[in-house]
Amino acid sequence: MTGIYDTGLEHNPANHQPLSPLSYLERAARTFPDITAVIHGSLRMTYAQFFARSRRLASALAAKGVGKGDTVTVMLSNTPAMLEAHFGVPVVKAVLHSLNTRLDAAIIAFQLDHAETKVLIVDREFSAVVKEALGLASVTPLVIDYDDPEYAADAPYPKGERIGDLDYETFVRSGDPDFAWSMPDDEWDAISLNYTSGTTGNPKGVVYHHRGAALMAYANTIHAGMGRHPVYLWTLPMFHCNGWCFPWTLAVQAGTHVCLRWVRAKPMYDAIADHGVTHLCGAPVVMSTLINAADADKREFAQTVTFNTAAAPPPESVLAGMADAGFAVTHLYGLTETYGPAVVNEWKDEWDGLESSARATRKARQGVRYAALEGLAVMDPKTMEQTPPDGETIGEVMFRGNIVMKGYLKNRKATDEAFAGGWFHSGDLGVMHPDGYIQLKDRSKDIIISGGENISSIEVEDALYKHPAVAACGVVARHDDKWGETPVAYVELKPGRHASEDEIIEHCRALLAKFKCPRTVIFDEIPKTSTGKIQKFVLRERAKSL
Amino acid sequence: MTGIYDTGLEHNPANHQPLSPLSYLERAARTFPDITAVIHGSLRMTYAQFFARSRRLASALAAKGVGKGDTVTVMLSNTPAMLEAHFGVPVVKAVLHSLNTRLDAAIIAFQLDHAETKVLIVDREFSAVVKEALGLASVTPLVIDYDDPEYAADAPYPKGERIGDLDYETFVRSGDPDFAWSMPDDEWDAISLNYTSGTTGNPKGVVYHHRGAALMAYANTIHAGMGRHPVYLWTLPMFHCNGWCFPWTLAVQAGTHVCLRWVRAKPMYDAIADHGVTHLCGAPVVMSTLINAADADKREFAQTVTFNTAAAPPPESVLAGMADAGFAVTHLYGLTETYGPAVVNEWKDEWDGLESSARATRKARQGVRYAALEGLAVMDPKTMEQTPPDGETIGEVMFRGNIVMKGYLKNRKATDEAFAGGWFHSGDLGVMHPDGYIQLKDRSKDIIISGGENISSIEVEDALYKHPAVAACGVVARHDDKWGETPVAYVELKPGRHASEDEIIEHCRALLAKFKCPRTVIFDEIPKTSTGKIQKFVLRERAKSL
Repeated sequence: MTGIYDTGLEHNPANHQPLSPLSYLERAARTFPDITAVIHGSLRMTYAQFFARSRRLASALAAKGVGKGDTVTVMLSNTPAMLEAHFGVPVVKAVLHSLNTRLDAAIIAFQLDHAETKVLIVDREFSAVVKEALGLASVTPLVIDYDDPEYAADAPYPKGERIGDLDYETFVRSGDPDFAWSMPDDEWDAISLNYTSGTTGNPKGVVYHHRGAALMAYANTIHAGMGRHPVYLWTLPMFHCNGWCFPWTLAVQAGTHVCLRWVRAKPMYDAIADHGVTHLCGAPVVMSTLINAADADKREFAQTVTFNTAAAPPPESVLAGMADAGFAVTHLYGLTETYGPAVVNEWKDEWDGLESSARATRKARQGVRYAALEGLAVMDPKTMEQTPPDGETIGEVMFRGNIVMKGYLKNRKATDEAFAGGWFHSGDLGVMHPDGYIQLKDRSKDIIISGGENISSIEVEDALYKHPAVAACGVVARHDDKWGETPVAYVELKPGRHASEDEIIEHCRALLAKFKCPRTVIFDEIPKTSTGKIQKFVLRERAKSL
Repeated sequence: MTGIYDTGLEHNPANHQPLSPLSYLERAARTFPDITAVIHGSLRMTYAQFFARSRRLASALAAKGVGKGDTVTVMLSNTPAMLEAHFGVPVVKAVLHSLNTRLDAAIIAFQLDHAETKVLIVDREFSAVVKEALGLASVTPLVIDYDDPEYAADAPYPKGERIGDLDYETFVRSGDPDFAWSMPDDEWDAISLNYTSGTTGNPKGVVYHHRGAALMAYANTIHAGMGRHPVYLWTLPMFHCNGWCFPWTLAVQAGTHVCLRWVRAKPMYDAIADHGVTHLCGAPVVMSTLINAADADKREFAQTVTFNTAAAPPPESVLAGMADAGFAVTHLYGLTETYGPAVVNEWKDEWDGLESSARATRKARQGVRYAALEGLAVMDPKTMEQTPPDGETIGEVMFRGNIVMKGYLKNRKATDEAFAGGWFHSGDLGVMHPDGYIQLKDRSKDIIISGGENISSIEVEDALYKHPAVAACGVVARHDDKWGETPVAYVELKPGRHASEDEIIEHCRALLAKFKCPRTVIFDEIPKTSTGKIQKFVLRERAKSL
């Protein structure tokens, strides 16, 4: 049956255009051409210049035959070239594939082949490993060297040799600054490709679409509280979920990107003080770097800076330290498959009045759905029924909505599994609290089953973090003939602090049921990913050999 | 050719959900159940209560057989019932049709029949005219009386009799507070219907869709600078373009609606001071009411209040008065067909340093596209080519994007004309300035052609407003045997101020070319629409009889 509201009221170009973040940059550049879009060392780029360079890049790519559905791979730090790629690549309807700059040659080669890379842009910091990867890969992309003009004199890593066919700057300059700024044919078209870290098996290629990226830009702007012309410091790698979509987000309010090659305390404080940074994102390790900076590296600043963190919930002591240092911390949660953050710990004013540990309990929860996410649930993956919202019953965290990926590239099986039952299965385990906030308990493989009882490794780690000497920790299962598994704690102590195994175990006993306390404590450096996540799988491997 | 990014990456419920503002209310209610959603006189409703009542309304409508594509018409002031209707009606996939409360019985009857109204909810203030309209109309909707419990004792209009089959409160209470909160089947489905004022011929029914309403909510939040829990005062009628979509917008940041039946100075100041209002919208007449309020009605308040205005550009003196009174004015522009505002005068910090008249010149421009509007242009409607951005060449203002209506209900011809060439033709004439900001010059019928020269009536009105005694004015064409047309000015003086015809004409000569100056000045009350727009067509009628 067709009703009156469905007749003569069809889509047409006047009332239906594809959603795309490309629209935001055009608007920012035309409205605020003189506002600073990018700061990088001594370099400044206005929105007019940034827009023109993105068009030049697009034009140069088009001249090399790059077009719809082609993959442009980049191995870049948080530099202006990386920002330009976020716009210049999709303008020619190609797909931006960002490599994690810490990957080894074998994984890079796998990704280049799997993504069918046509063009590869490489920062000279990474030329050696990329050269090696190209030797292993089957594809033979056009290779372009990016020679960062602001490569710091005190660089912790030296520049590598040129390995490309072309130089990035020459390539961009060959393009037309008035190249047509095209929207995608369809908002469902792919905009970017990000591989999961793939702790087991080959990494999976997560495909984002223009629709999701456009909506994330709105939601980030709103949830991060970005007013006109925010100043954003690039401490989160842009290769990580496209920097949680902030390269696109900043265009909504014509904000300033402050680039940063390496996350070190002094340049962070300098940027905050000198450029008036209002927002930054990063893993807890970035917070530690800020808090534990040498006094000589710290700077005074007047503004309150919003720090969005994800991954592990921030320990209470870190939150207190951040507040003292002038940062307002928001805890987010998401996965590569959800464009980065899709859950926000919406903070309630009345919680400010709670005592410190109760506040930390609230702060540790992952929270509620982003405005742009339509569904967030904790479910039994077998029955697809929601677990009771009692804060205790563990289920799998599931997502549904427009900021969930298109799927995994060339991997129908994994895609179908991930979307079984019409929800995205995160693989993360959590609980739903009575007030609708979710809290992660563990990934299924992180649950320790001891004597038939489930032990949440996160709960044990939370207890460990309350010990004043603990800088970082990870709790994993160790085989035990009697109990099946028992928890073993890997602990990294703060510089100059000491604690014995017995002390640590005693500390846990004061906070946890006895069966949850670690039986073994090993003092060691904790392995972390390039984005600051603790590599539990490495610890599990180590525990096997105990 | 199907590429790798189009294979095995289709839509499914996990990664594609219809965009709808309904999603925001559910999120606000679940996340912030205890935050105040609605204030109306002594009434307070939390988000949990507001959500439950919207579900009850939906449930009660469903029980009466109201469903997809049915029209629910409301004749309501800015009351809680009107807010509930903005959510409760679309939840059952019906379409909300809001009647302008100033309409006469004949037009109401026309709209009821044209919209095929199934249910009609009527505030008792308007029962007499609606009863008359029902006598004229062919449709026989279920009629529900809304008896506002906060109908003020000092009401300027008395309550009318009950004319309905049911009482609203009883009706809502009959519904289920746990009724399923359904999203639309498709984001293109209609959410609301708003008739144009139809100064010529029958009014046209402008149909909005869920997609546009959802995107407007983001864009309003961002452009109005709404942080967490804004407090919004309802001075703009909700029947006007669905209150520029703010009934839906507020849910994004879980803001508080402060209802207001009648726009009068004292309750406005009381609400601002007592409830901490952060935002309000309205025509320039609302600003005049605030500025010209008696001292006894004014209140002190600490916060800066954002006032969004549209329609005529605010005169310089009004802007200065508003700034003095603690309001930050943003000038917006749009039409019923663009969900209300789709253009924003993005203000640049450097303009604050300009001298007063230069600032006013900037403030008078309509501006640039909303982030959610994909295209804004000034074009020659015959060639569909953009006029040069010289600030002088007049063309028709055109819109394109996702906040443009589905079309006109049951009016294929008008819809096709409006969307000719893939752009929405606004009928407004304007220029594009070199910096990309548009400025309205006139509607085509408002241009006065004198001796073959075009005279912009807005330009003449701007000059008139600079006279200190002028409170309101309208300039229209008068037939002239020699010149074809000459401008005649209708002027309303401020209370207690005086000016002669000669003085006014002399004042204009100092500011305008002689041929643009009014030949005749008539001192009279200026007729305005219920939304504060000056009724040029009334003035044109009066000028005919001169």
